[in-house]
Amino acid sequence: MTTTTAPTTPGTTLREGAFGPAVSLICRECGTTRELGPHYACHECFGPLEIGYEFGSVTREQIEAGPANIWRYKALLPVPDDIESSPNLEPGFTRLLEARNLATELGITKLWVKDDSTNPTNSFKDRVVACALSAAREFGSKVFACPSTGNLANAVAAAGARAGIRTVVFIPSNLETPKQVNSAVFTENLVAVDGNYDDVNKLASEIAGEEDGWAFVNVNVRPFYAEGSKTLGYEIAEQLGWRLPDQIVIPVASGSQLTKVHKAFQELIALGLVEDKPYKVFGAQAEGCNPVATAFAEGHDAIRPVKPDTIAKSLAIGNPADGIYVLDIARQTGGAVEQVSDDEIRDAIVLLARTEGIFTETAGGTTLAVLKKLVATGQLDPERETVFINTGHGLKTLDAVSGSVGPAATIAPTYDAFVAANLA
Amino acid sequence: MTTTTAPTTPGTTLREGAFGPAVSLICRECGTTRELGPHYACHECFGPLEIGYEFGSVTREQIEAGPANIWRYKALLPVPDDIESSPNLEPGFTRLLEARNLATELGITKLWVKDDSTNPTNSFKDRVVACALSAAREFGSKVFACPSTGNLANAVAAAGARAGIRTVVFIPSNLETPKQVNSAVFTENLVAVDGNYDDVNKLASEIAGEEDGWAFVNVNVRPFYAEGSKTLGYEIAEQLGWRLPDQIVIPVASGSQLTKVHKAFQELIALGLVEDKPYKVFGAQAEGCNPVATAFAEGHDAIRPVKPDTIAKSLAIGNPADGIYVLDIARQTGGAVEQVSDDEIRDAIVLLARTEGIFTETAGGTTLAVLKKLVATGQLDPERETVFINTGHGLKTLDAVSGSVGPAATIAPTYDAFVAANLA
Repeated sequence: MTTTTAPTTPGTTLREGAFGPAVSLICRECGTTRELGPHYACHECFGPLEIGYEFGSVTREQIEAGPANIWRYKALLPVPDDIESSPNLEPGFTRLLEARNLATELGITKLWVKDDSTNPTNSFKDRVVACALSAAREFGSKVFACPSTGNLANAVAAAGARAGIRTVVFIPSNLETPKQVNSAVFTENLVAVDGNYDDVNKLASEIAGEEDGWAFVNVNVRPFYAEGSKTLGYEIAEQLGWRLPDQIVIPVASGSQLTKVHKAFQELIALGLVEDKPYKVFGAQAEGCNPVATAFAEGHDAIRPVKPDTIAKSLAIGNPADGIYVLDIARQTGGAVEQVSDDEIRDAIVLLARTEGIFTETAGGTTLAVLKKLVATGQLDPERETVFINTGHGLKTLDAVSGSVGPAATIAPTYDAFVAANLA
Repeated sequence: MTTTTAPTTPGTTLREGAFGPAVSLICRECGTTRELGPHYACHECFGPLEIGYEFGSVTREQIEAGPANIWRYKALLPVPDDIESSPNLEPGFTRLLEARNLATELGITKLWVKDDSTNPTNSFKDRVVACALSAAREFGSKVFACPSTGNLANAVAAAGARAGIRTVVFIPSNLETPKQVNSAVFTENLVAVDGNYDDVNKLASEIAGEEDGWAFVNVNVRPFYAEGSKTLGYEIAEQLGWRLPDQIVIPVASGSQLTKVHKAFQELIALGLVEDKPYKVFGAQAEGCNPVATAFAEGHDAIRPVKPDTIAKSLAIGNPADGIYVLDIARQTGGAVEQVSDDEIRDAIVLLARTEGIFTETAGGTTLAVLKKLVATGQLDPERETVFINTGHGLKTLDAVSGSVGPAATIAPTYDAFVAANLA
C-alpha cells in the first residue's frame, strides 16, 4: 500500500462541505486520526482508514421528507448537502418485503428480505459506487475506475456514464461475453486483462499508485465507497418503522457490508433514531470461499486466506480485508458466520423465487441457504424477527439454476393437449 | 371472444370494496355500461371493456403519504383499500431521471427518462400484473396465468409465487433457454407449447373460455390489468412536482400503455391534482412491426395487421388491440406515431447506456430512437420539456448489443502494458 499518490488531480482544492458530516479519517488498526482527504491508508501503520463523523441533529421527519433513494440519509454520509443536484444513478430505498411464504417454509415467525436486486444496475454495489463517485467528484478525479468481474464493473461503468466522468473498467479477459456486455454497454473503456481477477486487482493497485487523478472506487477512495453500505442498515430500520430487527443475515465477501450495516445500526441508536436493543449479526459464506466461517467455527482471531472455488463468484474473496471485524461483530452480538455448499446455494435461489417472487444471484442464494442452516442448527431463533439481505439479481448468474428449472410439460397447441397434461 | 366463463371460481361472491373507486365497466366501442364484475367483453357488441370510476376526494398529500410503490395511487385504481396487506411485488415508483447528457446529445433543452427497468422483474409489466393479481384474488380465481414470450411471463410467474396462488405460464417451446429460466425459476408450471406466440395466445383464450377460475391476466382480467399502466402517468406527474410534461414518447405494442398514460393525465387534471395544459403524446414502433405508425403516416383510421419481424420482440404485436385509440390520442394531442429500424434501436440502446447509465431492452431502444427521429424531423419541439418511458431491462435482450460493444483493448497484466495502451 502507498499513500504517495491520490485520486486527487494536482491543483485541486477541496470545497467547504465536500464531505458533509464527515470530519476525519480514523485508522481501524491503531486508531490514529488524520484530516479528511484523499487518503486510504494510515500514515502510521498502513492500516485501513474509516470515516469519522460529527453528526448534527438528524430527525426521522427530516429523513422521511427526503427522496426515495440513499440521499435521504445524506446527513449521515460523507457527501455534500447538494449531492442530489449532481447526476447519479439514485440507488437505494429498495423494497423490504415481509417473506411470509418463505417464513412458513423455514418455520420462522417473522422474516423480511431486503431486496437490493432492484437497484439501478441490480446489485447493492450501486450504493457504494454512488458514494465513491461523490468523493471522486469532490477530489477532482479525472478517471473513475475499478477492477471487477461483475456487479462492481456494471455499477462503476453505469454511474460514470451518467456522471459524465471518464470511466475505465478492468476485467479478466476470459470473462464470459454476457458479463462483458453488461459493462461494455456503458463504457468505451472496458479493458480486458490477460490474467485472473487477482492479476487485474494487482494491476489496478499499481495504476492507483502511479497515476494522479485516478479514483479506483475500491482502492484509493475505499473509505468513502464503503460507507455506502450503511444505507442498507438505515433503510432496514426505517422500513421496519424505525426499529431494529432481532437478527440479521448478511453475505460476507470482503466483509465490508456486514460491518457497515452494524455501524449504521449503532449510529441510529446513538442518534436516538431507533431504540437501543440487542441484535445478532450473522455472516454468510460459501463452502468454496469460507475463510471467515472457518475462523469463526475454529474460534480463531485471524483469517487464513483460501483459494476460492464456488458458484458464488461475487462472494469469492479469498483474503477478506474486513474478515476480522466480521468475526468481532458476530461474536460480540451473539451471531455466527456459517457456510453452505454450491448445491444448497442453487436450492435456495429456487426457494426464494418460488416463495417470494424474487430472483436472486448466487450471493443471495448463499445468504438464504445460510439462514436455513442457522435455523436447522438452532443458531438462529425462529421466534425472533429476522431480516436477510439479497444483494443482487439472478439475471446475472443465470447459469447457476439453468440446469435445475425448466418447463413442466411440453404440449401441442390444442385444448385437448392441455386437458391431457392435467394442468387444470 | 366469449363472456360465458370467467376468472371467478363458482360460488365466489365479491366482497364490498373489492375494486375501490371503480364502479362500472364501460365498452370502449359502443359506450354501454355494465356492473363491475369478472367481464372483459361487452355483452352488446363484444367490444373491449374499460373500468369506470367515481373518485372521492384525492389530495397530493394523501398520495405522498403512501408507500414508495404503485399503491400510493390506490385511490385511483380498481383495487381494495387494504391492497397493501396482500402479498404482492410492490412495483413502481421507479426513478424519473433528468437525462442531461442525452439531452445535450439530442439538442433538447429538458429531457427526462422514466425508468421502469428497476421494477421487481425489470419491466413495466409488474405494474399491470399487480392490478390483475388483485382482481384475480377478489374474483376468487384458482389459477393465475398468461401466454407470453418474455416480460409478462416473468412478471406473472413472480407475482403469483409471492401471492401463493397457483400460477401457470404458457410459452412457445422454441423460446431460448435463458428466457425460459427467467420464468421457470418462479413457477413449477411453465408450459412449453409447440407453436409460435400466436398459437400460444390462441390456446390461452381457449382455456380462458373453457375453464372456470382461470385468471389470464391479459385475456379475461384485462380491464383490471390494463389500468396498472396508469401509474406510469401518475408517477411522472408527481415526480415532476405535480405537473405534466409538454411532450411524452411511449412505446406501442398493443397500444394499451399509451392510452392509459393519457387517461392518467386526464384524471389528474379532472381531479385538480395537476394544472390543465396541452401536451403531445408520441408513439414509438419498430419498422419490423409498424401497423400503428403506418396508419398514422398514411392518415388511415383503421390498422392493417402486419407479421412482426424485429429485434424489439416485446413490441411485436402485429394486430394491436388499442392501435386505433393510440391514433386518436396522437392526432388529438398533436403528437405522432413514428417507426425506426433495428439498427437505430441498437444504436439507441448504447446511446442511453453511455449517456445516462441505463441499460434498456429493445423496447426502450425503440422509444429513444423514435425520440431522436422526432427531433431530427421537427415533429418534436426540442425547446419543450419531454419525457420518454423506458419499459424494460437490457439484461433481458443482451443479444441485441452483444455484437456491437466489447473491450476497447486487451492488455497484459502489467503497468507497462497499461501505459502502452494509452488509457491514462
